[in-house]
Amino acid sequence: MTDPANPTACLIIIGNEVLSGRTRDANLQYLATRLTEMGIRMAEARVIPDDADVIVNTVNECRAKYTYVFTSGGIGPTHDDITAACIARAFGVALERNAEARRQLRRNYDSDDQLTEARLKMTEIPVGAALVENPVSNAPGFRMENVYVFAGIPRILQAMFEGIAGELVGGVPVLSRAVTAPVPEGILGGPLADLQAAHPDVEIGSYPFNKDGIHGASVVMRGRDADRLDAVAKAARDMIRGLGAEPLEGDTV
Amino acid sequence: MTDPANPTACLIIIGNEVLSGRTRDANLQYLATRLTEMGIRMAEARVIPDDADVIVNTVNECRAKYTYVFTSGGIGPTHDDITAACIARAFGVALERNAEARRQLRRNYDSDDQLTEARLKMTEIPVGAALVENPVSNAPGFRMENVYVFAGIPRILQAMFEGIAGELVGGVPVLSRAVTAPVPEGILGGPLADLQAAHPDVEIGSYPFNKDGIHGASVVMRGRDADRLDAVAKAARDMIRGLGAEPLEGDTV
Repeated sequence: MTDPANPTACLIIIGNEVLSGRTRDANLQYLATRLTEMGIRMAEARVIPDDADVIVNTVNECRAKYTYVFTSGGIGPTHDDITAACIARAFGVALERNAEARRQLRRNYDSDDQLTEARLKMTEIPVGAALVENPVSNAPGFRMENVYVFAGIPRILQAMFEGIAGELVGGVPVLSRAVTAPVPEGILGGPLADLQAAHPDVEIGSYPFNKDGIHGASVVMRGRDADRLDAVAKAARDMIRGLGAEPLEGDTV
Repeated sequence: MTDPANPTACLIIIGNEVLSGRTRDANLQYLATRLTEMGIRMAEARVIPDDADVIVNTVNECRAKYTYVFTSGGIGPTHDDITAACIARAFGVALERNAEARRQLRRNYDSDDQLTEARLKMTEIPVGAALVENPVSNAPGFRMENVYVFAGIPRILQAMFEGIAGELVGGVPVLSRAVTAPVPEGILGGPLADLQAAHPDVEIGSYPFNKDGIHGASVVMRGRDADRLDAVAKAARDMIRGLGAEPLEGDTV
């Protein structure tokens, strides 16, 4: 299912608070950007509730399907943090208090007394998992086979990811070129479809914008061959000039 | 599968640009908030690429599973806008140029000449679908059975949603109360688990924050009975006072 030359990833965002609208996820964009740079294609993301059966089933479906799975959320000290227990269930292993996780968490406190039962819950790790360090607040994440379990707080997730990024096996990075057309998509669409048909090896996306009264589109070319991208970007600029407009460099997000 | 008293929803976010990190989705939070107010539980969200097979399979899986499915993205005039064609395939119907969609889109232009082939692509609607008006830019979305197909641009998606919100059948709205505890989750966790165990009819979530040097948590209670929520919120305030701290009203997002 997974091709080592074209590794894929899936992010599973765990949290009722994202599905109720309370919290706006910030982790997908961070991971998507970093993984794209590394030649790992984010193939899917799912937002799911704090429901044990849903978490177990989703993790098992996705870990069979993608090279890497990342989860965010649900590894804190409160009763609604159930991700570690669900990962243990998904892999059919026990959940145990982990001595090394305790040692790392202990750095936060002056005495053992401060390691409350709630805090010790954060040291419960599926048997066989490798810890992922948390340089922000010392409660570790972990990796179980191809599943990385991270905190949901963006600052912590980012630090955890950067700590393990070196162990991910990337593919040939997907590069991009962007040309901005000050032309509405309704005019651009025909010639752009022809451009895509003439260059099937390069993926061309069109993202409309309406800025300072100008209706236009960012044309983004993606592929693994820089020379081919440069050639198609040049063809895109020529196409825009053919429509009587002057192309701008870069992406207008 | 779907219980009319407890309607559910799923958002399918379609777009390579979200999975590459180029674009940060803003639609999940909007729809989640609005649906929650209406007593419709957002049960899942998925972000998937502009890949026809993936779109068809995801739509078919989700429309069988949830009361309502919303899709965002991929209904513009360019070659990479393939959502309408995929919905037609998912339902096994033809995609046809729709006279009413053309009439609506025509409002944007002075003459028929301006209805380019690219623009007319936006009038291609699955046979049997009901149009969803787009008061922002006149290219309609549509509904096919329980699947609503919206544009990805937040301003347009929001206008489309508000246009059809009246036809959605909501359940008893889920209400919430929030109490902020200026107490770290590691201290709060034990008593909070006891509070949850004592009140299983109310869902209690804990969301940590670190603000102005204070480590604390927003305790959010959700349920359908206002009196029960008020009682549990009072119990939460008492619990926080029992930990030697003064509770604050509301949620600290």
